[in-house]
Amino acid sequence: MEKNRLEAFSDGVIAIIITIMVLELKVPHGADLDALQPLLPVFLSYVLSFVYIGIYWNNHHHLLKAIRRVNGAMMWANLHLLFWLSLLPFVTGWMGENHFTPLPTALYGAVMLLAAVAYYILQSLIVAEQGRESKLAAALGKDFKGKISPMLFVVGIIVASLATLPSGAIYVVVPVMLHILVPRFLHVLDR
Amino acid sequence: MEKNRLEAFSDGVIAIIITIMVLELKVPHGADLDALQPLLPVFLSYVLSFVYIGIYWNNHHHLLKAIRRVNGAMMWANLHLLFWLSLLPFVTGWMGENHFTPLPTALYGAVMLLAAVAYYILQSLIVAEQGRESKLAAALGKDFKGKISPMLFVVGIIVASLATLPSGAIYVVVPVMLHILVPRFLHVLDR
Amino acid sequence: MEKNRLEAFSDGVIAIIITIMVLELKVPHGADLDALQPLLPVFLSYVLSFVYIGIYWNNHHHLLKAIRRVNGAMMWANLHLLFWLSLLPFVTGWMGENHFTPLPTALYGAVMLLAAVAYYILQSLIVAEQGRESKLAAALGKDFKGKISPMLFVVGIIVASLATLPSGAIYVVVPVMLHILVPRFLHVLDR
Amino acid sequence: MEKNRLEAFSDGVIAIIITIMVLELKVPHGADLDALQPLLPVFLSYVLSFVYIGIYWNNHHHLLKAIRRVNGAMMWANLHLLFWLSLLPFVTGWMGENHFTPLPTALYGAVMLLAAVAYYILQSLIVAEQGRESKLAAALGKDFKGKISPMLFVVGIIVASLATLPSGAIYVVVPVMLHILVPRFLHVLDR
Repeated sequence: MEKNRLEAFSDGVIAIIITIMVLELKVPHGADLDALQPLLPVFLSYVLSFVYIGIYWNNHHHLLKAIRRVNGAMMWANLHLLFWLSLLPFVTGWMGENHFTPLPTALYGAVMLLAAVAYYILQSLIVAEQGRESKLAAALGKDFKGKISPMLFVVGIIVASLATLPSGAIYVVVPVMLHILVPRFLHVLDR
Repeated sequence: MEKNRLEAFSDGVIAIIITIMVLELKVPHGADLDALQPLLPVFLSYVLSFVYIGIYWNNHHHLLKAIRRVNGAMMWANLHLLFWLSLLPFVTGWMGENHFTPLPTALYGAVMLLAAVAYYILQSLIVAEQGRESKLAAALGKDFKGKISPMLFVVGIIVASLATLPSGAIYVVVPVMLHILVPRFLHVLDR
Repeated sequence: MEKNRLEAFSDGVIAIIITIMVLELKVPHGADLDALQPLLPVFLSYVLSFVYIGIYWNNHHHLLKAIRRVNGAMMWANLHLLFWLSLLPFVTGWMGENHFTPLPTALYGAVMLLAAVAYYILQSLIVAEQGRESKLAAALGKDFKGKISPMLFVVGIIVASLATLPSGAIYVVVPVMLHILVPRFLHVLDR
Repeated sequence: MEKNRLEAFSDGVIAIIITIMVLELKVPHGADLDALQPLLPVFLSYVLSFVYIGIYWNNHHHLLKAIRRVNGAMMWANLHLLFWLSLLPFVTGWMGENHFTPLPTALYGAVMLLAAVAYYILQSLIVAEQGRESKLAAALGKDFKGKISPMLFVVGIIVASLATLPSGAIYVVVPVMLHILVPRFLHVLDR
């Protein structure tokens, strides 16, 4: 399989996920600020998920740039990743509608954790094909991100079942951390 | 017609189908496990359909790889396939919401059967153009999958009207079988 | 503007329109045939619109094949066409839900008429750029389709306000007619 | 990052936004003109947003045509633009449903303003990379559009909180103005 079609298909699914999430922002019937206010947490969870999806799309692109051909295992690993991402609109809406209460927040973290695991599997398959000596393996060698962010999600899930606020903080820390690490990753790979 | 645009359009439709299905997972209003529980069968039917769509997308890609140009008949055969796949979100939602009761389960099987028939028509048109001696024809020659899976769906529909559980089992058997056969198919075509 | 991106964008919009129409097929709550029955006219109008969109997508592709560059006027003519097509899910749903009663059926015809006019404008712009001597102009020269089908829609709208059945017949005649003429069009252009 | 995938992803998101907006046109239950009438303002706001999105898509295309590679900053600036555009279906629906009353109209203007700012940031990043001497910088040099339209939106927001009609007029003026300036922009860049 040429990677072009895999990229195009993944982009399509991710573009739809990012856009469909906004449908959870239901148009309110009133025309005043009171009508908007209950939408605030839904909006905040939308922003958070939008950032996550952006990070995934960006990383996904750099991961695929390294390879030339896609084998069957990579294709299913990629679909596996898209599956967990496709649940994001649901868990985002549920977390937002319930004002970040423990269970929805924990479920959000669990889906993000599974997406991170799926990404890790895809990455491992690609590194395995590229060989340990490849540029990609070097770029990922000092990859704290790949190792730490799933752990943070686990902590987030556990904490969420106890108290919501600290868990929310972790959710904000992860994208920020990824965001700072992405440029370095880019740097190694592009040069 | 160049096949690129047909591929891109099919990818677009399939990417949207796979993502729109998740909209049937309506965000519940409660924030506890009781609110999630009624969604379990909807989730399970989503997983099943996601796997099916993944298989179709994968096979579709390998089928089109063999050809260079698309004629009018192929284009309509492809739209015919997309039509049945586009009904998948509806039948998935209906089957899930009704906890796999006979009629919705039978309708699900019927739509999958018609999609399989549509795929078979498309495949036949392509093989006819490629010629009996082509690599594609060779790859499909020992194709048990193409012949058996429609039959299994027919059995599934009949059984579903009597009892749901065995029919469900057949629905699970088909993707597993396809999944095992896909790599072999890949192997013949790629080498 | 290169035509690639115009094609890709149009394909994206058309793929989403064709898929979003199926959302009007709301999942019923009952699990028996009685629950499905009210959906029959919605389903029929979906099939009709699916065929129309397929025809438009196919013709659109052949029209664009003739050109190399897209100017600003073509881009807006293309967006104008996509605008009317984007209203198809709405009028399809309305016509289906109201069992093909006069007003919704007339509105459906009006939107299709405006889409046909938009297509004609786009085609004229492209022919103007290609020149009267071009292959495209030759292919369209004997084009009864482009001239007759808008007229049929006008008749359809008028008739619909009087009685629904004959109007419905015209709606079925048009795609069939287009479907028969498309291969001839293809033939002239491809060879 | 190659710009192809950025273009394809942006096109995907924009195509979905433009199509999803039409979902706010809920199919009414009645079959007469009275049932359609409440949809008129929703339809009008849909038309307005459709034109805006068309302008953005067109300009976005010309902006990206100038560059060859996309760096991390551009990618995030682009996602930032898509974020504000993704809120368009929501604010369009809210403004339409509330018949252009002050607050929803002001919010619509605010989102459009933020999209304009995001577009400006993206443009600045690209110009910075291209250099002051580039064709793009020349094309944008006399760019009244980029400087005036955000200001008009600010005025629109303020006016909207006082009276709706004049604000609505500004919203109509902006796309018309952009539409007239776009061909000139095209002219400079293409030749």
